Amino acid sequence: MAAEFRMSRRVEFAETDVSGNVHFSAFFRYMEEAEHGLWRASGLTIFDPDSDIHYPRLSTSFEFHSPLRFEDEFEICIQIAAITRRTVKYTCVLTCGDRKVATGTLVIVCVYMRSGEPMRATEIPADIVERLQAGGAPRG
Amino acid sequence: MAAEFRMSRRVEFAETDVSGNVHFSAFFRYMEEAEHGLWRASGLTIFDPDSDIHYPRLSTSFEFHSPLRFEDEFEICIQIAAITRRTVKYTCVLTCGDRKVATGTLVIVCVYMRSGEPMRATEIPADIVERLQAGGAPRG
Amino acid sequence: MAAEFRMSRRVEFAETDVSGNVHFSAFFRYMEEAEHGLWRASGLTIFDPDSDIHYPRLSTSFEFHSPLRFEDEFEICIQIAAITRRTVKYTCVLTCGDRKVATGTLVIVCVYMRSGEPMRATEIPADIVERLQAGGAPRG
Amino acid sequence: MAAEFRMSRRVEFAETDVSGNVHFSAFFRYMEEAEHGLWRASGLTIFDPDSDIHYPRLSTSFEFHSPLRFEDEFEICIQIAAITRRTVKYTCVLTCGDRKVATGTLVIVCVYMRSGEPMRATEIPADIVERLQAGGAPRG
Repeated sequence: MAAEFRMSRRVEFAETDVSGNVHFSAFFRYMEEAEHGLWRASGLTIFDPDSDIHYPRLSTSFEFHSPLRFEDEFEICIQIAAITRRTVKYTCVLTCGDRKVATGTLVIVCVYMRSGEPMRATEIPADIVERLQAGGAPRG
Repeated sequence: MAAEFRMSRRVEFAETDVSGNVHFSAFFRYMEEAEHGLWRASGLTIFDPDSDIHYPRLSTSFEFHSPLRFEDEFEICIQIAAITRRTVKYTCVLTCGDRKVATGTLVIVCVYMRSGEPMRATEIPADIVERLQAGGAPRG
Repeated sequence: MAAEFRMSRRVEFAETDVSGNVHFSAFFRYMEEAEHGLWRASGLTIFDPDSDIHYPRLSTSFEFHSPLRFEDEFEICIQIAAITRRTVKYTCVLTCGDRKVATGTLVIVCVYMRSGEPMRATEIPADIVERLQAGGAPRG
Repeated sequence: MAAEFRMSRRVEFAETDVSGNVHFSAFFRYMEEAEHGLWRASGLTIFDPDSDIHYPRLSTSFEFHSPLRFEDEFEICIQIAAITRRTVKYTCVLTCGDRKVATGTLVIVCVYMRSGEPMRATEIPADIVERLQAGGAPRG
């Protein structure tokens, strides 16, 4: 369950606010960018428009330790903390050099969603669990 | 063709950037909010998930005359400048009290879009043209 | 400590994503809009560019119960759950008609921040605590 | 005046909307990301919090030729089309493989801005003009 993904990112101007720091809502987009990078590194996509299986967010949180500013370069590290039959839980740490910036969590749920019907939770397909657990190294 | 729609809006914190002013990309969201208000005032919705007819944007522009800041209250006035068989062209003015803030344009095109097929321009349905021309006052 | 603020909001097009629902990061902006409304209703502003006292976010979370879609009208209710010497903790509930949409928390901290110096936590000014506790009803 | 900057980018989930395509306001953020990359490649930053010289946007536009979707990889090419005493005009082209996606323009103006005073247009500092014209290759 040690799958993790790391990426580097630079703060863009539009992500700042009048306080001079990155707006706190942007951290959730940062975490999601890393999550989708982890899926791609596992040979997957989180959203297939031709599929009825999707992965909406169940819950998420962030603790903020120090600010990010325009053009700061930082690293996002996301890890799979747990996979259950229907959910994936991630933990995420943002660092800027030696400085810890923020710590996040994210839980997503696998749903069956067909247009016109209410969505309902369902089991994560076995091949997806396998690939996520393999952490981006598809089995030969 | 004098259909117009006015709405009041307050600058939200997340819309500002480190310069202290509203980020320029937010003006396009402001203009679009007023556009969709105009459609609703005409008894319409710009996006019906059950329809194959949609209205993507062809072109858009803004000139910026003076800044908007956090918690500024401003007015958005959008007008239909022209309707052709397949397009609607709007002009938009943002004011903050007596101060002119920005002037925008937006051209949208009517397309037929079915999943799996490329989208193609098509004629705006006659009842939609009528309602937009009536400017929010559906004919009796 | 029962200060609360309610506001109505409509989902804007730019807040949706390809899943058809509101992107989860938008909920944090919704909660913040209500927070700033609560401050205004208390005769305050959360951000005064001429002051050295600011209120960055310490931590935040959301649980998502059901989706919001384009043009959905929903209500945001934010409450002050606790005020300590240096922090304010809010809880927030979003509802769409009878349907519970999401539940959030937000903790902000009072800091002294002068350009060129590192920011440091400080006590919330007494008159601000009073006004927030009064819940928008400034004492006569 | 042939300074230009190219960068590759992937469409992030939060940049899409319910139509399935990238929201049109995101193109202005894409263009700005490339603009700031051009400045960095020229040894500059567009925003120095310790300076009174800033570069707000005067006008901007986009024409949209074809859509971008989630996880599309595309290229942004921004060029300096003209530098006057107080303004820089850029043109920008987005392509996805062989497909032209969008064409933009952006004009920024150099201003002197000190807190408490109204901002006023001023001349772009000579060394900045030189570096921008050199297109990222600072003269020896």
